[in-house]
Amino acid sequence: MHSKRLVVLGLALVSCFVWADEGMWTFDALPKNTLKKVHGFEAPETFWEHMLLASLRIAGGCSASFVSPQGLVMTNHHCAVECIEHLSSHSKDYVKNGFWAQQPGQEKRCPDMELNQLVEIIDVSQTVKEATLNLYGPAFKSAFNEVTSSLKKDCQNNPQVRCEMVSLYRGGFYHLYKYQKYSDVRLVFAPEVAVAFFGGDLDNFTFPRYDLDVSFLRIYENDKPLATPHYFKWSFEEPKEGDLAFVSGNPGATSRLLTTAQLRYIRDYAWPRRIARLSELRAMLKAYSERGAEEKRTAATWLFSVENSLKVIRGRHAALADRNFFNAKIAAEHALQNKVNTSEEWKDYASVWASIEGIVAKQTRYAAEYAAVEDAMRTSTLFGFAKVLVRAAEEREKPNANRLSEYVDANLPNLETWLTSKVPLYPKLETALLRFELEKMREALGVEHPLVKTLLGKDTPARVAARLVSQTKLADVKVREKLWKGGTQALAQNKDAMLLFAKLADSYGRAIRKTWETEVEAPATKEGERLAQLRFQLFGTTLYPDATFTLRLSYGQVKGYEENGRTIPPLTRMSGLFERATHFEPYLLPASWTKAKAKLNLNTPLNMATTHDIIGGNSGSPVLNSKGEVIGLAFDGNIQSLGGDYVFDAKLNRAISVQALGIVEALDKVYGAKRLLAELKEASKTTTNQEPAKGNKETPKTTTNQTQKP
Amino acid sequence: MHSKRLVVLGLALVSCFVWADEGMWTFDALPKNTLKKVHGFEAPETFWEHMLLASLRIAGGCSASFVSPQGLVMTNHHCAVECIEHLSSHSKDYVKNGFWAQQPGQEKRCPDMELNQLVEIIDVSQTVKEATLNLYGPAFKSAFNEVTSSLKKDCQNNPQVRCEMVSLYRGGFYHLYKYQKYSDVRLVFAPEVAVAFFGGDLDNFTFPRYDLDVSFLRIYENDKPLATPHYFKWSFEEPKEGDLAFVSGNPGATSRLLTTAQLRYIRDYAWPRRIARLSELRAMLKAYSERGAEEKRTAATWLFSVENSLKVIRGRHAALADRNFFNAKIAAEHALQNKVNTSEEWKDYASVWASIEGIVAKQTRYAAEYAAVEDAMRTSTLFGFAKVLVRAAEEREKPNANRLSEYVDANLPNLETWLTSKVPLYPKLETALLRFELEKMREALGVEHPLVKTLLGKDTPARVAARLVSQTKLADVKVREKLWKGGTQALAQNKDAMLLFAKLADSYGRAIRKTWETEVEAPATKEGERLAQLRFQLFGTTLYPDATFTLRLSYGQVKGYEENGRTIPPLTRMSGLFERATHFEPYLLPASWTKAKAKLNLNTPLNMATTHDIIGGNSGSPVLNSKGEVIGLAFDGNIQSLGGDYVFDAKLNRAISVQALGIVEALDKVYGAKRLLAELKEASKTTTNQEPAKGNKETPKTTTNQTQKP
Repeated sequence: MHSKRLVVLGLALVSCFVWADEGMWTFDALPKNTLKKVHGFEAPETFWEHMLLASLRIAGGCSASFVSPQGLVMTNHHCAVECIEHLSSHSKDYVKNGFWAQQPGQEKRCPDMELNQLVEIIDVSQTVKEATLNLYGPAFKSAFNEVTSSLKKDCQNNPQVRCEMVSLYRGGFYHLYKYQKYSDVRLVFAPEVAVAFFGGDLDNFTFPRYDLDVSFLRIYENDKPLATPHYFKWSFEEPKEGDLAFVSGNPGATSRLLTTAQLRYIRDYAWPRRIARLSELRAMLKAYSERGAEEKRTAATWLFSVENSLKVIRGRHAALADRNFFNAKIAAEHALQNKVNTSEEWKDYASVWASIEGIVAKQTRYAAEYAAVEDAMRTSTLFGFAKVLVRAAEEREKPNANRLSEYVDANLPNLETWLTSKVPLYPKLETALLRFELEKMREALGVEHPLVKTLLGKDTPARVAARLVSQTKLADVKVREKLWKGGTQALAQNKDAMLLFAKLADSYGRAIRKTWETEVEAPATKEGERLAQLRFQLFGTTLYPDATFTLRLSYGQVKGYEENGRTIPPLTRMSGLFERATHFEPYLLPASWTKAKAKLNLNTPLNMATTHDIIGGNSGSPVLNSKGEVIGLAFDGNIQSLGGDYVFDAKLNRAISVQALGIVEALDKVYGAKRLLAELKEASKTTTNQEPAKGNKETPKTTTNQTQKP
Repeated sequence: MHSKRLVVLGLALVSCFVWADEGMWTFDALPKNTLKKVHGFEAPETFWEHMLLASLRIAGGCSASFVSPQGLVMTNHHCAVECIEHLSSHSKDYVKNGFWAQQPGQEKRCPDMELNQLVEIIDVSQTVKEATLNLYGPAFKSAFNEVTSSLKKDCQNNPQVRCEMVSLYRGGFYHLYKYQKYSDVRLVFAPEVAVAFFGGDLDNFTFPRYDLDVSFLRIYENDKPLATPHYFKWSFEEPKEGDLAFVSGNPGATSRLLTTAQLRYIRDYAWPRRIARLSELRAMLKAYSERGAEEKRTAATWLFSVENSLKVIRGRHAALADRNFFNAKIAAEHALQNKVNTSEEWKDYASVWASIEGIVAKQTRYAAEYAAVEDAMRTSTLFGFAKVLVRAAEEREKPNANRLSEYVDANLPNLETWLTSKVPLYPKLETALLRFELEKMREALGVEHPLVKTLLGKDTPARVAARLVSQTKLADVKVREKLWKGGTQALAQNKDAMLLFAKLADSYGRAIRKTWETEVEAPATKEGERLAQLRFQLFGTTLYPDATFTLRLSYGQVKGYEENGRTIPPLTRMSGLFERATHFEPYLLPASWTKAKAKLNLNTPLNMATTHDIIGGNSGSPVLNSKGEVIGLAFDGNIQSLGGDYVFDAKLNRAISVQALGIVEALDKVYGAKRLLAELKEASKTTTNQEPAKGNKETPKTTTNQTQKP
């Protein structure tokens, strides 16, 4: 069975046929014909425009949506957990105890959260391609930076707008995405983490599941709730197996167009290295958490993030290790190569695979050093501040086009926001993380490596980390602000230990980065672009582009699956939550739930499996029925979906969401969140929001500043 | 360069040509012609007989050798460290402070060490093959057990003899190896671990290197030093680059004859899984060690073993990930397949690769569960005791041929020795390890797995581990002795918590083991045997068999190498040790060395690189010059040698040893070990031991109980 599926899939990759409900479709190229043909579904343009405008993105890497006209936003608990943690303290632990603003005035502002609403997509492919024509390496990068900056110029002068250059089909298209930016985001409701993430890492990416992974936020403007005509209504009906459903969200990244040489690299180098690193970091953080209650509280977000990544990457590695899967990828590649080799028309493309193979060989040579040197100490926030301050000062004195990409003018506001946000820092945890990173750097590069000698001398990672964290003043947001504004001069005068340390590391990082960008990144982008052009000429937009953390539509069905001969139905019920509970983490239910048990309708659906093609970044996406109403809140995929980075398997891949009825049952009977519940109900009564007035200033425009597609 | 080398190597695998100084040769089939042709070396039979009899094996997984006629044995510090740790206590830490028996009476007996001296090799291939002809699965296993037991019968009645069935060329030959067994082994000398393992895990498998990884033991018989006419003399001359040298030791295991399907499995499943496990276990043990001095002391051996394995496996994984390497393996396999497919004579063998591919698919399916269930909790000594007691009682009531292989009569004495040894147990560490194992089991199998439900119920790994370790009486050797002797009856009456726990786990382990043995192990052995027969018929013993932790000769040269354009000479000097030292572990020199610095000749060679083809198990092997004198003590390989599991690369693979002059310089000037030094010098003066009398009762016999070779 397995092998058959993959052969079919392999063919899919080289034909116009797209498997079942596969696909992450951009809103300017929705598969409307397929929807009509396969699901008999049709909708007016306004249906899609409304869906687009009611959808949101959390800049940190999640999705969300408006669910009332008063700026109420629904997302996952795990997408808001950093905010919840930042608002907490030793005495008020909202992560542990949950949060509920009984009165509107009690809604609390997240210190560091940005929401984006997509408002315009501009096709700038022609401009970008002309500007970078026949350019390679640094010349390409410089020209690309320049054209990007010039295209974004309008946005930069408007702090409420965020513009992003999006490369679709790996350089096949370039689109400029324009977002409305919201920075005053306040926490309205969050359950206890014990029920939001019930089952913890053990249950993560499994199904059947029992998580209330939900939180509600509200966007404010001028200290008042934002008026939001576009929002999703709530569905108070239980969905049935087979129901058509949509997910509108922002899948982060997929690698479905990579060549087998690139996939081999990921399988044999990238993932094994990350599995080792994350496994070790996980055990370090676990041991750290067990030192005391405060250590546990402060390390929780890191531990979650590390365990989550580890599970994802092990799942992806497993997909690549599967011989049937890999052989199908090889067969599909051969089929495409045959097509190219046997036709005069495409023969210019025949060299692309060998060229990528050559780039991968260089990637293999440089990756370990690149990771250890340029991407070093990435878990230390204080080192991160120092590195950005040191680099930004130097970069900002260069012409925009010559800068490292993260320091071009268009990105400076983001960096400033991050540097000046009032997030709490935990010196003890910082020390532990920095020590870990220094140990891993020393291990990866060896004690004789010049950078290791420069940074550690004859000292130890533990001592150096402790010294740096205890001596630096960068935990003070005012110090960072001053340094950011002061540029190279302020920096030259400052003798802060962490800054000096970051300066020592800087030139090594720049050197390997230059090699990496010149010999790996830039040529890989160029060759990826050639391959994308080939695919376009063969298939057009009947294929969807790899995910790019931009808004996509996925369509599918409410549907269970078969696993080892066992039928798994699409809905779990609240009764299952209580059956699974024990007296110990991660299966310890909060008191609110055990108290409310008698009042609850235990037959209420809690979680739901659907066939949507989603991936990390989609967390927090609304799951909508064919009327565009909320029937769920996507928060996860099952373990089989982890191979979705490379391939979608409609038979087994499932998206997992919190079912809408479960959310309202909990708000009502467990949390007594009457105000919130009333708002959701009220919002669902009105009908105007389904049909946005034509010409509404928020209506998205998909414009093309060029006439030709690639 | 790299690619060229590997292509040559690939060819080597399918021709009679063996690369350079490659090979781990059995003493009954030494490559004497090659030695003569390539190195112009010839020696009388007595030279080799003497070498064989002066070589030793440590049953736990190392090599050693006699270096005086009074039973003095040289091996690595890391091969004796368990003994050193067992002899230590909180107040007398010989691992940290070193050990030196100034007087003969101060030599201390290791509680749990066995040395083996190979005295006879009997070819029993024909008997075994006849007994197992056309048998598969359980029938094969049962017949194999039976014939093995019957062949070993003589040994079993003699507690001083150990017999082992050795399968060479993966079932091509079966040899019975007869060893003289020595159990009264006493510690004579050990340096501080800080200099024995200078550089710790960071420097492990690197070169240039500066380790005094040496210890001296002595074998006693009837409370007196054993008289040992066969021993290696010491060389007091500095070796030169290019000198011919021998290593006589016991390489543990290699996988050079595996098919590409098997290597793919190792690359894509076995190693990534172990890398994850070991990385996590390492961080757990590191955090544990930092809780206090006693924790550090008691976890040190475990931490070393875990870090060492992790580095080995990452190195092996890297070799398999190398595209050039793998392509060469594929090419070699294709060449062999072509040979088979194009010849009537060999066409029966054509099915072997597909058959192995099918077995690998099953291995892939069962491996995770097998590891998590049957090989579970392997780091917990107390659980290990319980498991063996439970199983042994049941198995011993069955006919010998029907037992699990580790419980056949021939193996019972070893099990008894292990169960009744007085090794110290550390309850706190046991709890931490058992908890870790239970957590990993739950993670691998999921909370719904029946075994997990049985063992944990609604409790947590931490609580279950703490309860079991605190309640069990199995730490008491008398309790274990009684249970071992009492069999099923004693067991049925005993309500020890750990025993009951092991009983609960037993049937699950037996079930998956049966599947594993029937569907994976037995067929893989059979197909491996077919492939071996093919190779034999094509190449005979011009190829050496994979390592089997039995005595092998490796020949090579004292030789440096080139790395990233840098020339690395074969010898390091004591001066380098002091240059590399810092004030912190793992580069903190013990006080004895800093005190002795002025007295030392800093130009004395300390470590040495040679081209020998060795692998884990060879640790502790003597490195001998062409006169058969000790010029080094092998303790490691360089990082490039880690791929040696699959392939030998004479250009870069290097064995690393402690140079003989460095050992005596340290004994003399750092440790003032005059008695030991005098013994080594005295032994080197006598000449008789080079020429053992013919007919000496200890002369090894390589006999064949059959006339035909396979």
